[in-house]
Amino acid sequence: MQDSDFVERVRAVSGHLAKVPRRVRLVEVGPRDGLQNESVVLPTEVKARYISLLSEAGFSEIEITSFVSPKRVPALADAEALCGQLRFSSGVRYTGLVPNRRGLERALAAGVRSVAVLAAASETFSQRNIGMGVREALEEIRAVCREAQQEGVRVRGYVSTAFYCPYEGRISPLQVRSVVEALLEIGVAEVSLADTIGHAVPTDVVELLEVLAPILPWERVALHFHDTWGLALANVLTGLELGIATFDAASGGAGGCPFAPGAAGNVATEDLLVLLQGMGIETGVVLEKVVEASRYLESHLGKLLPGRYLRAIGS
Amino acid sequence: MQDSDFVERVRAVSGHLAKVPRRVRLVEVGPRDGLQNESVVLPTEVKARYISLLSEAGFSEIEITSFVSPKRVPALADAEALCGQLRFSSGVRYTGLVPNRRGLERALAAGVRSVAVLAAASETFSQRNIGMGVREALEEIRAVCREAQQEGVRVRGYVSTAFYCPYEGRISPLQVRSVVEALLEIGVAEVSLADTIGHAVPTDVVELLEVLAPILPWERVALHFHDTWGLALANVLTGLELGIATFDAASGGAGGCPFAPGAAGNVATEDLLVLLQGMGIETGVVLEKVVEASRYLESHLGKLLPGRYLRAIGS
Repeated sequence: MQDSDFVERVRAVSGHLAKVPRRVRLVEVGPRDGLQNESVVLPTEVKARYISLLSEAGFSEIEITSFVSPKRVPALADAEALCGQLRFSSGVRYTGLVPNRRGLERALAAGVRSVAVLAAASETFSQRNIGMGVREALEEIRAVCREAQQEGVRVRGYVSTAFYCPYEGRISPLQVRSVVEALLEIGVAEVSLADTIGHAVPTDVVELLEVLAPILPWERVALHFHDTWGLALANVLTGLELGIATFDAASGGAGGCPFAPGAAGNVATEDLLVLLQGMGIETGVVLEKVVEASRYLESHLGKLLPGRYLRAIGS
Repeated sequence: MQDSDFVERVRAVSGHLAKVPRRVRLVEVGPRDGLQNESVVLPTEVKARYISLLSEAGFSEIEITSFVSPKRVPALADAEALCGQLRFSSGVRYTGLVPNRRGLERALAAGVRSVAVLAAASETFSQRNIGMGVREALEEIRAVCREAQQEGVRVRGYVSTAFYCPYEGRISPLQVRSVVEALLEIGVAEVSLADTIGHAVPTDVVELLEVLAPILPWERVALHFHDTWGLALANVLTGLELGIATFDAASGGAGGCPFAPGAAGNVATEDLLVLLQGMGIETGVVLEKVVEASRYLESHLGKLLPGRYLRAIGS
């Protein structure tokens, strides 16, 4: 590279970064993805208070729990009781994960008006995580979505193992595309592409989006990174460069998936906020309030959460 | 953004990422930057063995110690003894930090053939870190550099607080440029731009390089990130996009600066390697060997290092 090429290249990257979204929507998944793997089963009122602190922080969407079998995920066995205790703030979408029609019925009965469904891109992961193959899971999702739509309930669709699978390794973008196509045809409002085990790098993100962009409108894409190897923020940066404006995160970096060996927690909301704020990107979320929620969670989990910002500012 | 714009944008980012350097040079600074702040003073033979393990990992440059006053940095008081115990491998550049002419003389006497000097972009940080103002420090560096060049010894120049200062906050890129100009005029071989406290974000990196690119050839730039808030890899990604191909890192993420309150360790070499390897970028460094060196260091420090990859793979 010539010196003049360097000047030009820096200018190009600068112009490029100037085009990242000026406002980003954060989906706080701490109460669900962050807690589902916890061996400490928190009292329902603690979860309700945690969610209330997150609501005060300014998130427009919080994933509050999962209406999954209590035997499979004991930490979230109190989904109905939790909904009973929550004070739903207007302007906040409270989403419940529903693995199937039974889960949807429970969620609706509990007053939930926004649900998330889960499809895997990896056949093996799908079998081990939800006991169904990918096609079978999509048929269940179709039934869930039909019923939800009749009730006027929004459906968000996760694609787990969208980059790597703990059993199958790298997942082909074409394989992901067929799942995304099915979800769009079924009618989900938004597709959250999840790096379940946190092994993806920025080139993986771009390769996947190259395959998806022709079928998936940018405003229906969310990115969901786990921070196992510390790669999440680099991937978020690439997502921003692609123009993507919805990111999932968990306060304090809570989490890890019980069915994904070696997976660590979600990217910490605080770390993501530090990146976005530093880049001048608005979120409507107040960092100090998120820290307050994380500290509250830590005090009840009886352990420190791994988020870098949270650890750096001291206990 | 229209759907067609999204497709185009993804394609542009893809083309853009395809131009990142195919090969990157890593400067392993663990033995100096990683250890200088340690309260545990390691035995000299442990340091020698740590450096030997790092040499086996394939680094072309390792910063082994600092010829600073033993009173100021007790952890590195054994610089001469360490050099006496090292087996210098050919193909590895062993660099010693020298704060002044006295340090250079000690380094030369100890057989060191590559030195690093340190200038700060922040006046306050310079005063508190080395007890000299920026201009005075640059005059000392000029004298060091003249003497080193007479001896045929390579000089690398750090610019600390190149983005943020713990006392002054954001540092203007123009202020950094004046220090870089001075270092280039003095004749340093390479300029390592250090985010001493780890608060920089990708837009800061681009803004600084926009100001520096016209005077600083890309092959003479190194980037040195601390991972206080987990932002380092996102900044590295931006550096790669700019075409920069030299990055400093410390095995295991060891470190923190005694004179920079709130600063955490350097970006962990393992985490940086996982990013680079995932993106298909060569370094010549073997990840497992770096892990071996970090594990060895942990066993002698009696504590775990913070690197994300190191922690994720278990103890």
